[in-house]
Amino acid sequence: MDIATGLGLLAGGVVLVSLILMGGNLGMFADTHAFIVIFGGSFSATLIRFPLTSMFHGLPLGARFAFTMRRTTQRELVDEIAELAEIARKQGPIGLEKVEIEDPFLAKGIRYVADGYDVSFIRDNLERDRDNFLTHLDEGQKIYRAIGDCAPAFGMIGTLIGMVQMFANMTDPSKLGPFMATALLATLYGALVANLFCLPIADKLHGKLLDEETNRTLIIDGILMIRDSKSPALVREMLLAYLPEKHRHEEGEPVPA
Amino acid sequence: MDIATGLGLLAGGVVLVSLILMGGNLGMFADTHAFIVIFGGSFSATLIRFPLTSMFHGLPLGARFAFTMRRTTQRELVDEIAELAEIARKQGPIGLEKVEIEDPFLAKGIRYVADGYDVSFIRDNLERDRDNFLTHLDEGQKIYRAIGDCAPAFGMIGTLIGMVQMFANMTDPSKLGPFMATALLATLYGALVANLFCLPIADKLHGKLLDEETNRTLIIDGILMIRDSKSPALVREMLLAYLPEKHRHEEGEPVPA
Amino acid sequence: MDIATGLGLLAGGVVLVSLILMGGNLGMFADTHAFIVIFGGSFSATLIRFPLTSMFHGLPLGARFAFTMRRTTQRELVDEIAELAEIARKQGPIGLEKVEIEDPFLAKGIRYVADGYDVSFIRDNLERDRDNFLTHLDEGQKIYRAIGDCAPAFGMIGTLIGMVQMFANMTDPSKLGPFMATALLATLYGALVANLFCLPIADKLHGKLLDEETNRTLIIDGILMIRDSKSPALVREMLLAYLPEKHRHEEGEPVPA
Amino acid sequence: MDIATGLGLLAGGVVLVSLILMGGNLGMFADTHAFIVIFGGSFSATLIRFPLTSMFHGLPLGARFAFTMRRTTQRELVDEIAELAEIARKQGPIGLEKVEIEDPFLAKGIRYVADGYDVSFIRDNLERDRDNFLTHLDEGQKIYRAIGDCAPAFGMIGTLIGMVQMFANMTDPSKLGPFMATALLATLYGALVANLFCLPIADKLHGKLLDEETNRTLIIDGILMIRDSKSPALVREMLLAYLPEKHRHEEGEPVPA
Amino acid sequence: MDIATGLGLLAGGVVLVSLILMGGNLGMFADTHAFIVIFGGSFSATLIRFPLTSMFHGLPLGARFAFTMRRTTQRELVDEIAELAEIARKQGPIGLEKVEIEDPFLAKGIRYVADGYDVSFIRDNLERDRDNFLTHLDEGQKIYRAIGDCAPAFGMIGTLIGMVQMFANMTDPSKLGPFMATALLATLYGALVANLFCLPIADKLHGKLLDEETNRTLIIDGILMIRDSKSPALVREMLLAYLPEKHRHEEGEPVPA
Repeated sequence: MDIATGLGLLAGGVVLVSLILMGGNLGMFADTHAFIVIFGGSFSATLIRFPLTSMFHGLPLGARFAFTMRRTTQRELVDEIAELAEIARKQGPIGLEKVEIEDPFLAKGIRYVADGYDVSFIRDNLERDRDNFLTHLDEGQKIYRAIGDCAPAFGMIGTLIGMVQMFANMTDPSKLGPFMATALLATLYGALVANLFCLPIADKLHGKLLDEETNRTLIIDGILMIRDSKSPALVREMLLAYLPEKHRHEEGEPVPA
Repeated sequence: MDIATGLGLLAGGVVLVSLILMGGNLGMFADTHAFIVIFGGSFSATLIRFPLTSMFHGLPLGARFAFTMRRTTQRELVDEIAELAEIARKQGPIGLEKVEIEDPFLAKGIRYVADGYDVSFIRDNLERDRDNFLTHLDEGQKIYRAIGDCAPAFGMIGTLIGMVQMFANMTDPSKLGPFMATALLATLYGALVANLFCLPIADKLHGKLLDEETNRTLIIDGILMIRDSKSPALVREMLLAYLPEKHRHEEGEPVPA
Repeated sequence: MDIATGLGLLAGGVVLVSLILMGGNLGMFADTHAFIVIFGGSFSATLIRFPLTSMFHGLPLGARFAFTMRRTTQRELVDEIAELAEIARKQGPIGLEKVEIEDPFLAKGIRYVADGYDVSFIRDNLERDRDNFLTHLDEGQKIYRAIGDCAPAFGMIGTLIGMVQMFANMTDPSKLGPFMATALLATLYGALVANLFCLPIADKLHGKLLDEETNRTLIIDGILMIRDSKSPALVREMLLAYLPEKHRHEEGEPVPA
Repeated sequence: MDIATGLGLLAGGVVLVSLILMGGNLGMFADTHAFIVIFGGSFSATLIRFPLTSMFHGLPLGARFAFTMRRTTQRELVDEIAELAEIARKQGPIGLEKVEIEDPFLAKGIRYVADGYDVSFIRDNLERDRDNFLTHLDEGQKIYRAIGDCAPAFGMIGTLIGMVQMFANMTDPSKLGPFMATALLATLYGALVANLFCLPIADKLHGKLLDEETNRTLIIDGILMIRDSKSPALVREMLLAYLPEKHRHEEGEPVPA
Repeated sequence: MDIATGLGLLAGGVVLVSLILMGGNLGMFADTHAFIVIFGGSFSATLIRFPLTSMFHGLPLGARFAFTMRRTTQRELVDEIAELAEIARKQGPIGLEKVEIEDPFLAKGIRYVADGYDVSFIRDNLERDRDNFLTHLDEGQKIYRAIGDCAPAFGMIGTLIGMVQMFANMTDPSKLGPFMATALLATLYGALVANLFCLPIADKLHGKLLDEETNRTLIIDGILMIRDSKSPALVREMLLAYLPEKHRHEEGEPVPA
């Protein structure tokens, strides 16, 4: 699990609730009016903006991926693939059947190798999977960003509607306060949805998209080399060369021997 | 039909009407003043911004295309063209005359093949059609975006005019409310026109523009290969190679045999 | 004449005047204070921003070109040049002397050919003209955009000055209205100058700049080919190849013969 | 001298002073509070943003160059260098010693030639000079832009501090006016510093930077060719070829002979 | 130490404190409410935005590097490396052991040479170090920029929460002042954190990132050439050729001999 996302949301919630409780009660900040305009309005605009299928795939995938995290670094992934190449070399593809692999994408590829499919079938299937996955993750990122971009505008729209109603019915200026408070809630909701939720999530998904593109391409290359019975040393060397420079080395401090 | 666009507009309308009815009546939000400044102002600025012919072609084409949707995916399109190649191979170009084709652009190209026009005539006519269409769709997208960009400014202009009149005639501050309400309506209209209508429509048209460019180029290539009596297998293979990577595969999950 | 620019400005004026008359009289909206800050301020900032010669050439050229329009499409221009090539072929360069040509740039080039100047002289003179013209048109576009970008800021400055004076002299809050109205006029003027005039004009000039670059280069190429006594068919073919794809075809619907 | 910069600043000052005098007196607009927050704040932020040496070189160089202007066009510069080549040809390098040259950079290079330094020494010294100069001019432009970008924010900060103090001490709302006036002055100062001074100056420096890069490179090339005793005609031709297209021709209208 | 950063922060603090003391006391501007929303909110959003490891490495590294400064220019660095090459030439690698080197990265590389490691080991270790360092510095810069980008939004959120509570409990408008003052503090804190701290720091880190990339690559190249026993003259010449143009020359004025 990606602890940072959860921690961040939790911290944001704590900050918000403490602020509210310091000056009043929570009920004062719950408002159907503001809720409808922010979520209804952003949802409507996003529905117009994207094809329906993008919405169905992108939103839940984005939500899920903002919270999950690959437990291994890219270098550990290379090590794991090199070990699998070692096993395949010693025990043949059959030996791979008994190995337990955590990463589902890697596991699937290894199963293909163990089952003896040919190279072009494995490549086609895994690339198709990777491309579908990346497309949906990118759609998810774009949808969260689009919501984050329009939520403040809908906050302003909600506040404007509230102010128009308030001013139109205004008889006694001294009773204006509570109405004004309610009208401002829509702006508050819009700013919170954008700045504490949607835009940070979109930024995190963008980072994960870049990582997963490297990870899955690396896994595909590794599996195809295992299928071709390449030596573990060669597999490791070629996969390391594939990594972006900054991941090529372990983070530990080198010690002169 | 592109259900998402319609659903989105409908949802937006429902959200708006419920918000208004929750705090008053609809009449309070209808205002000729605000209507004139937003639509008149945005229309005037757009008229200055674009050539007259772009306005005539772009606006209606954009409106129509925001709501229509190609019923087939790009892969299904390749399949359909491959089937037509099969028919042309077995029955000769004559056989194509009886086929019913839904897509008007594909239908037109197939009619040319059935009528026996030569390759350069077909290519010239279809490319001209495609380019005219894409140019107008792009103009449409730009016009909706331009309106969406200037509508909030005209909302502010309308509110400023209203406030100047209100302040200039102000004698009793306690009667200021209803005037203020009316003045704010222009800002509200401008924000709604931009965020709930024009900008989402422009974004959707941009997406469709990219899709249609691929679709129509693919159809032209397919038709020219059918005219050259290429084998259906070759037609399919070459068209698939043309697709952007993400569309090359069907979305179904591959199952190992 | 570019009817759209004129129509847009007229429509903008009508919208503005009707809005004002609906809620008061025009005099209420005329204010020397606001006029000075918007035009004086924007003019001063633009003077600092650009060299003096750019201002002298760019502003009037931009104003003139926003309202003028080439009456012929690029394809008609190619036809006209091909006809001139036909005349030059049949009657020799002398025949060109009697032809009446509307476009001044084309007319000048043809006069050079009729007068028997050599190729390098004609090319040098026409390219120098084209480059000077495009430079000045680009300067004009940039100046209108710069004014449109800073006018709202000067509107705010004018309103701030007005508000400081109002607050500093404030004794009776109930008399604040008329002063506030006057202060807001500067913001209104700035928003109008930017959104209804300068930014749309700058956008239109940008479009014309792109068109004129193609047009004049095309004319130069055509004239040089006429000077070289190329055949009309070749002239037409080579000039069409020069056009950006979308202009290569006439807009009429092709009919299968 | 660059008259436009001076005229613009003068015009801006006149506009400002007339506006202020129309509605009160100048003293009302002088405020230490606003002065400290705008100049102190912008200065502090700029100090953090740039290395100290950039500040020392960039600010004064920028201020000086915004007001100075090369009196000659690039084409006149080429003519001047060609004349110097003529002199060097006829009288030898010694002849250059007596020539009076206005441009200090050109004068320095010519002195090197007259003193008989070898090519690589001259090139190294002049290129070092040019690079130092361009680096400092670019730093100057960036610093003015950075100040122009943050001044409005510090204006808002000043106004917020003033408003907090005003509200915290508020007992009688009717006495709020003069405090509000003072608080708004910071926003006014920030907007003026940015829009009437720093951003236009930064834009002008950016234009001069592009020009000086061409000018000084052209001078270096010319001087090296004079050192190599190239013929004046060749010097002129090669330097003209170096100019960006728009400067290659004089602005005068060509007349057919 | 980078004096500019420290001076800037100090100056900013002095400006702020004087402004506050000129119109009241410091206590009026200390507010837990505003503190929580700005630091809590920005921290939560940043936590969601970045992986946890980036936060741990980037924030402190950024803070440290904004205040430290390489005491030598890049040209002095080249001179220092050339001297080391001289020593290595005369006394052999052993001679390098006794040299005192200030820069830790250069010192580490020289120790490797003195200890006799082979070229590929030295290159791998130093490049790994450089890449880790640059990655973390870049993360630091991005985190400071992200905080600077969202702090004003959280300022607005804090002010909105305060205003909602104020309006909801409003009974006597004349007592509104102190509440309003407190609500505005959040906006003030947000603007200060962004404009006086985070954004300038991010800009400075970006400048240092570019410099350190050149410096460390230059050091690596120099050390590898020393390891290969290249002549000091060659080392100097090749490293100078590596420098970006503007650093290639010393800033002193050249004097003709």
